Amino acid sequence: MSRFFISPDELERGSCVLTGENADHAKVLRLRVGENVTVSDAMGRESSGTVVSVGQEYQIEFGAPVLSRSEPQCKVGLFLAYAKADKLEHVVQKATELGAASISFFPSVYCVSRPDAKGARAKVDRAKRICLSAAEQSGRGIIPEIRAFDSYQAALQAASEAERFLFLYEGERQLSLGRALADAKPKTLSLMSGPEGGFAEEEVAGAVSSGAEICTLGPRILRCETAPLCALTCALFALGEYDEY
Amino acid sequence: MSRFFISPDELERGSCVLTGENADHAKVLRLRVGENVTVSDAMGRESSGTVVSVGQEYQIEFGAPVLSRSEPQCKVGLFLAYAKADKLEHVVQKATELGAASISFFPSVYCVSRPDAKGARAKVDRAKRICLSAAEQSGRGIIPEIRAFDSYQAALQAASEAERFLFLYEGERQLSLGRALADAKPKTLSLMSGPEGGFAEEEVAGAVSSGAEICTLGPRILRCETAPLCALTCALFALGEYDEY
Repeated sequence: MSRFFISPDELERGSCVLTGENADHAKVLRLRVGENVTVSDAMGRESSGTVVSVGQEYQIEFGAPVLSRSEPQCKVGLFLAYAKADKLEHVVQKATELGAASISFFPSVYCVSRPDAKGARAKVDRAKRICLSAAEQSGRGIIPEIRAFDSYQAALQAASEAERFLFLYEGERQLSLGRALADAKPKTLSLMSGPEGGFAEEEVAGAVSSGAEICTLGPRILRCETAPLCALTCALFALGEYDEY
Repeated sequence: MSRFFISPDELERGSCVLTGENADHAKVLRLRVGENVTVSDAMGRESSGTVVSVGQEYQIEFGAPVLSRSEPQCKVGLFLAYAKADKLEHVVQKATELGAASISFFPSVYCVSRPDAKGARAKVDRAKRICLSAAEQSGRGIIPEIRAFDSYQAALQAASEAERFLFLYEGERQLSLGRALADAKPKTLSLMSGPEGGFAEEEVAGAVSSGAEICTLGPRILRCETAPLCALTCALFALGEYDEY
């Protein structure tokens, strides 16, 4: 079923006309009168509705909003060192499907890609479009937030604001993500992963100083785009977010 | 550290000369004398060695082989309905990194891509190359097997040979993969997932008849390339294969 994000005000009203990108999207989907669609306020509430007119404008009528059941109880923030554009965009799309609450980029010592302020804004804008589309397609109740930090230190600061902060490092062997989250039910969780070249030792030490728990994902070496998605999947699975519903 | 798959005989001998694709790979990597490398027989045994000569031929010397510690105890076979080539290849690469033991393709009612025998062979050949490269890079002790089945029924038959057979279906809500694997320690596990258009109802019924347990991965709708990787990650995580080592 097609999904459109509309304003909270519109969601209260029981009826809306699709505008802007939603209207373009409706045209691409060739929405027809009578078709069932879902509208969401991107703040965790949604409603099932029906297309009542198409053509010049697409009008949708829907019932009283309910809480989306596709949002994880735990808000997981993914912190990604800048990687090559296609990898970063891949992670944004998949992390949105898998249930991340936010995705943040940051520069790191061994980053191949180190965008300037303008480049970072362009990356965020592109990531936001990918994220919106993935949120619609996967039936999310929110649109994950996309942020860019201009320093590693700023990213550490933000990541450490969560109840738990797990830092994925291929040099770690003692603590697994599974053991770190055993019997835990954090409301907020940060997961941080490195660039193609890995983290520098001083970065690992900095993370520890910021309260991060350094974790392994096991003996296989995961690429920089695979590790964060593996960690996100494991964390949400461990927290029961992939359970029956 | 670079990794090369060599023959079991060579692994016993304590010394080998890289040939064929290994030699090409060594050239690309610009291997130098004294560099540390790993050699594996692709059957779960490996050894750490040193490059002793480069140039006309690359010679490596190494100690007695030991069991690879990067192979999961549970052999997970992934069964994928044919999807568009880039998606299928993506799953092959990532599933190899994440620890799959084998990856199989099969045709399904709603497949967009339905290769003939020649097309299927070409897909398998390409997947084998991607898989080999991913196995080297991620430090696997085996090269996952790639197979193509020419019918859904044949794929069901093969999948049902594992100790457990979980079938991922977006229409299921009762049984989660997590609950299906709770306290289970299967030695072999099959995970089957559908194409872009999903499974047909008669295919789900056929899977049940073949002994499959129909599972959900939660309320979010995962793309055909995301679902099998999510399921593989959850299964290996649940079985303790991403633990400290």
